[in-house]
Amino acid sequence: MSEHKAKKQWTPELQEFHQELKDKNMGPLWASVFSSSQPKPRAVPYLWKKKLILEALDKAKELLAVGTGSIDRRAVYLVNPGMKHLEPHGWGGATQTLYAAVQALNPGEIAPSHRHMTSALRFIMEGHGASGIVNGVKYHFEPGDYVITPEWTWHDHVNEGNETVLWMDCLDIPFTSALTSSFFELYPEEQQPVEFPVDYGTKRYAGGMVRPISDRKPSPAPLGRYTWDLTKQALDGQSELKPDPFDGFAVEYINPSTGKDANGRVGARMQKLPVQYKGKAHRHVHSSVYHVHKGSGYTIMNGVRFDWEEGDFFALPAWTWHEHVNTSETEEAFLFSTNDLPILEPFGFEREEAYTENGGYQEIKSVFEPNRSDVITID
Amino acid sequence: MSEHKAKKQWTPELQEFHQELKDKNMGPLWASVFSSSQPKPRAVPYLWKKKLILEALDKAKELLAVGTGSIDRRAVYLVNPGMKHLEPHGWGGATQTLYAAVQALNPGEIAPSHRHMTSALRFIMEGHGASGIVNGVKYHFEPGDYVITPEWTWHDHVNEGNETVLWMDCLDIPFTSALTSSFFELYPEEQQPVEFPVDYGTKRYAGGMVRPISDRKPSPAPLGRYTWDLTKQALDGQSELKPDPFDGFAVEYINPSTGKDANGRVGARMQKLPVQYKGKAHRHVHSSVYHVHKGSGYTIMNGVRFDWEEGDFFALPAWTWHEHVNTSETEEAFLFSTNDLPILEPFGFEREEAYTENGGYQEIKSVFEPNRSDVITID
Amino acid sequence: MSEHKAKKQWTPELQEFHQELKDKNMGPLWASVFSSSQPKPRAVPYLWKKKLILEALDKAKELLAVGTGSIDRRAVYLVNPGMKHLEPHGWGGATQTLYAAVQALNPGEIAPSHRHMTSALRFIMEGHGASGIVNGVKYHFEPGDYVITPEWTWHDHVNEGNETVLWMDCLDIPFTSALTSSFFELYPEEQQPVEFPVDYGTKRYAGGMVRPISDRKPSPAPLGRYTWDLTKQALDGQSELKPDPFDGFAVEYINPSTGKDANGRVGARMQKLPVQYKGKAHRHVHSSVYHVHKGSGYTIMNGVRFDWEEGDFFALPAWTWHEHVNTSETEEAFLFSTNDLPILEPFGFEREEAYTENGGYQEIKSVFEPNRSDVITID
Amino acid sequence: MSEHKAKKQWTPELQEFHQELKDKNMGPLWASVFSSSQPKPRAVPYLWKKKLILEALDKAKELLAVGTGSIDRRAVYLVNPGMKHLEPHGWGGATQTLYAAVQALNPGEIAPSHRHMTSALRFIMEGHGASGIVNGVKYHFEPGDYVITPEWTWHDHVNEGNETVLWMDCLDIPFTSALTSSFFELYPEEQQPVEFPVDYGTKRYAGGMVRPISDRKPSPAPLGRYTWDLTKQALDGQSELKPDPFDGFAVEYINPSTGKDANGRVGARMQKLPVQYKGKAHRHVHSSVYHVHKGSGYTIMNGVRFDWEEGDFFALPAWTWHEHVNTSETEEAFLFSTNDLPILEPFGFEREEAYTENGGYQEIKSVFEPNRSDVITID
Repeated sequence: MSEHKAKKQWTPELQEFHQELKDKNMGPLWASVFSSSQPKPRAVPYLWKKKLILEALDKAKELLAVGTGSIDRRAVYLVNPGMKHLEPHGWGGATQTLYAAVQALNPGEIAPSHRHMTSALRFIMEGHGASGIVNGVKYHFEPGDYVITPEWTWHDHVNEGNETVLWMDCLDIPFTSALTSSFFELYPEEQQPVEFPVDYGTKRYAGGMVRPISDRKPSPAPLGRYTWDLTKQALDGQSELKPDPFDGFAVEYINPSTGKDANGRVGARMQKLPVQYKGKAHRHVHSSVYHVHKGSGYTIMNGVRFDWEEGDFFALPAWTWHEHVNTSETEEAFLFSTNDLPILEPFGFEREEAYTENGGYQEIKSVFEPNRSDVITID
Repeated sequence: MSEHKAKKQWTPELQEFHQELKDKNMGPLWASVFSSSQPKPRAVPYLWKKKLILEALDKAKELLAVGTGSIDRRAVYLVNPGMKHLEPHGWGGATQTLYAAVQALNPGEIAPSHRHMTSALRFIMEGHGASGIVNGVKYHFEPGDYVITPEWTWHDHVNEGNETVLWMDCLDIPFTSALTSSFFELYPEEQQPVEFPVDYGTKRYAGGMVRPISDRKPSPAPLGRYTWDLTKQALDGQSELKPDPFDGFAVEYINPSTGKDANGRVGARMQKLPVQYKGKAHRHVHSSVYHVHKGSGYTIMNGVRFDWEEGDFFALPAWTWHEHVNTSETEEAFLFSTNDLPILEPFGFEREEAYTENGGYQEIKSVFEPNRSDVITID
Repeated sequence: MSEHKAKKQWTPELQEFHQELKDKNMGPLWASVFSSSQPKPRAVPYLWKKKLILEALDKAKELLAVGTGSIDRRAVYLVNPGMKHLEPHGWGGATQTLYAAVQALNPGEIAPSHRHMTSALRFIMEGHGASGIVNGVKYHFEPGDYVITPEWTWHDHVNEGNETVLWMDCLDIPFTSALTSSFFELYPEEQQPVEFPVDYGTKRYAGGMVRPISDRKPSPAPLGRYTWDLTKQALDGQSELKPDPFDGFAVEYINPSTGKDANGRVGARMQKLPVQYKGKAHRHVHSSVYHVHKGSGYTIMNGVRFDWEEGDFFALPAWTWHEHVNTSETEEAFLFSTNDLPILEPFGFEREEAYTENGGYQEIKSVFEPNRSDVITID
Repeated sequence: MSEHKAKKQWTPELQEFHQELKDKNMGPLWASVFSSSQPKPRAVPYLWKKKLILEALDKAKELLAVGTGSIDRRAVYLVNPGMKHLEPHGWGGATQTLYAAVQALNPGEIAPSHRHMTSALRFIMEGHGASGIVNGVKYHFEPGDYVITPEWTWHDHVNEGNETVLWMDCLDIPFTSALTSSFFELYPEEQQPVEFPVDYGTKRYAGGMVRPISDRKPSPAPLGRYTWDLTKQALDGQSELKPDPFDGFAVEYINPSTGKDANGRVGARMQKLPVQYKGKAHRHVHSSVYHVHKGSGYTIMNGVRFDWEEGDFFALPAWTWHEHVNTSETEEAFLFSTNDLPILEPFGFEREEAYTENGGYQEIKSVFEPNRSDVITID
């Protein structure tokens, strides 16, 4: 059914018929939006200030402790205003497929061990002394590290330092929920035993595009923690090259045993925008959640300018025009982002399109005001 | 967050905090159902009587014509009562991933040509004289035939006979909608040209597990129409063998160039239940929509008995106990069904479990009354 | 090293140097044919008359019995004159990768059970009453049937009828020998037990491009015997279509659980040349061994005409121009053939080229005389 | 045919029959080694001293210049004594699949551009100032670097420094020759143009298990040069971990866009044997050619001790027991090696077996004397 027809005016007789069908658990295809000519995301472009999230976590720290007998995880997640209608029946993700949150773990706290079919990743934001155990390997968490917890792997976290540690979580909960494929299990103890040398995977991948020969056999997480120093080294190595017109210098984390995304169903990238980088606009079917690791600038999404600075988060829905700008005259900007490309690719769903008007740059029609969430109108 | 904790009672202070988060487009992970230990489908087991659907189509035939300038498709789709909350924002499918409908095409009508990223299949229910053109190949529609329209292939239908032709449609609309990956395009003419001999693929696959050597290269639809006579021949060939305890004799339609499902993202099966076959119960993560091609019997889903006869449809949600019974003492039953296994498998989501209590058979706790849809309660 | 240079005249000093290198187990790259611009097969086009092979088997029947305590298999294999230099150090195959033979089993004989890493297939030529057991499934052998024994599967043969049964064997022995990957094991008993209904796979695949749902999981031989009636039905179904200019109507046998070749590393085809079919010439990197199942005609290979009739065999080396002609005015010709395409494809080695001179047809420069093998000169 | 039977004594009548078959281009299966129970390589364990090879290259430098009009490559290749019988009809490789050579390029010389279906790799042994251009990217050659030239990529070398540069070449010539799949082409000019920044791939992969997002699409050589510093960094990172009992610390070079071997059909590894490392014995179907990058020690192959020091080469045939020992009390040893695993794996040919007798260590039955090649006896 073509789009314009879906909007046609139906006679009273047909309107009554349509209601009758609905009452009988049926629907009229001809009066439905069968397929729009272009993807129409329910999610909207949106930005959450770091300050807003930290205030929420501070309050959560006051009210709730983490650990057995209390709550399992102290995490506040980001709800895209356009996905709110799914709650409480399902998950209102940051995008239609991605759950994103910020988690805080206080000194001495242990987030108990469990596993689930959803696929989890973490990006360490700040604080020292925390670590996570994933299927027997203990990985230290340091700011800028990317740490993974593939599906159905036991994992628990502990803070053995003396300051609160913060990290971004991203999982494919909205997707696994939509597919009704969630399984979950609690580990019988609060923590699983450590069965390998500390930072085992990280020590096995200390340099070069080489892998221990025993990792020739595909496995879900031969490397569990991608340290910031090596990621930065990779990005800095490209400095003499020409940046990508849309993404600056962008790398994605890979599983060395497969060459695919480090984390099964959620992709992750780190991109460096050089000083005063001004990217062009494009759009793609995959959606993303961005976290500003360092720097300041803005991203224009569908004509709205979203200003960001270190620690902020923003959601890029599917098929949304976007361009990134680093406004600093002295500092490089680093954007960490997660995406649902691994979910789209098996079905050939990904497409990409460059913005051709206006020299490739969108006109700014309005500026997002972070505390005016009330203005978002969802039809 | 474990299940039991999600149901804990929160203090008024926390309830207020949760509301505050919601207002700011955030959510408290600790108060959400993070992951249930088992999949909990929103869709419910449900059955639609053929009579109910035909009455709706009869009325639609009175009120609406098919063709350019009128409606594109005269199809009434099945809405699972448990998925109704998604409408009108999204699609209330027959299950969480599958759209299913019955389409009627009158003599002389042409359903105009279009293409979309959703993947479509048809099972011909009754009537002669209709055919469909898929990417230049015209396929005749005869009862019992299985016909495919893979994603992004041009397709249109025409009824050149003198009786209404009915078929089941099944597409992955709820899935592609959830992933925001729908593209759609109208063909510039009402019908595309026929560029190959009629029933081209069917003639190239007239017998044996052999393929024309030019189909060694994978392609989406080397065989577009799977005729009922060959499918029945395959099932009858197994008569001397022992039926499967859960599914009798069940075959799935395959793409000869890949060995995968005939239709990219929607699986399809035909199963034969021998006379007085009494299957055992099991459950699996994949969901299905069944159509009774021939025969009569019942299926018990999660303890509720759903009686069916020729032409009926029923929905089997994910992770739902089910067992099939052919109650006839003289006739074999043939169930056609579609499933979302091709969507689950790339992610390792499929699991299966046999029912072990009571000798493998569920107790019947109630009987589904087809005209009492009002009794379905969705929390 | 380019080809012309390899042929340059070397000074006496260099010739001495080259010999010195040879003595020290080294070689001068500059004096070797590094890579020719085109593949240069050692194997030559060749044809073996059925009569010649049957005479050899008749003598073998006189001199040797099959069974434990005697010989394991009564098979005479075809040695390509161009590959003879490899014997006795390796295998002189029919082509550089394919071993082909004719095997005779007398009434009452049992060919004892064994397994090996080489992959075996059989095409039944004549006689009734024999059968083979492959991993617990007993398959009857009837003329025109294609039967497989994938790598490392136990297999034994028995003739329970009252006439000699003949079949073609084809294995990838030259290839596995070249890769030094042969493993072999004798079964502790003369015959393995039959553990499934007779002709199990064949009964499960009696029609249509559908498969039992339990074969969704890839396995090496869900279908072990492809009966002639279904293969012929497939070819006859194409009669209204236009034959391929090079191969007439050609089908290849596939494994329904994978969509790949029925037999792991050796491809197999049956092609029908319509009455008076005159094919055009082409060449490809893969090599083939042909067996004339029915009919008479000729094949031109690199300008030499090879006349064939029912029961004959001929070898088509890699990258050899060839065209097939059915000379009969009344009978269709059926050519069974095996090939090494599954060995080439993983490495992207296959290429194909159509002959463009002379309207696509080679000029016949000479006619092969079957009893003049002495004339073959190999440099 | 089982092994012991192949050796049975045949009557004069049968011997005559066997000869008669041979004369008619046929063979008796029953008198052939059908399949041995274990792989029996024609290649033998062997070692070439660096000194021997350099002397040959020195002589070649006197006698021959590299460049258009002269020879294309000044390379001396290693011929396994057990493979000599294949020459001059085919290639006597270092193993049955691998060609290995040492190439010398003098200051000012250019090795002209060409491409071939064989897959080439180089390991830089000594000298500075040379570089290679591969499909438009110029890569510097420094000692310890691993540089690839995948199939059908244009490549040429130049020495712009002031000393001879030496490197090891390894290609799959014996394999592609055996499969008759060689194509070769000369570039119209002596050198191809440089179209990317120098060391392009190396700059894009300067650290971490991350890749530029544009390399998500598989390509044959996104990274063309793997520098020694990063490879060593990877090996040193493992220092705190426990070495593998067979291989010490061993890594393999991977293609970041696929996770497979860096070079299509030839695998490559670098392994570090810690001071006084004494490895255990095992064997596998894949064969290898080793080059001693640094250090000294010995390898026992099938009971024969082969002493090695920096610059030496040795061949490990298929299914040969072997164990490595670093005899130095102060220096780590680094062994570079190439293998045919990528050729075996698509067919499931690889197997591995640990040596269980004598605590896992072979007894040394003899010591290889490098200048006594005459003692090798091949049956």
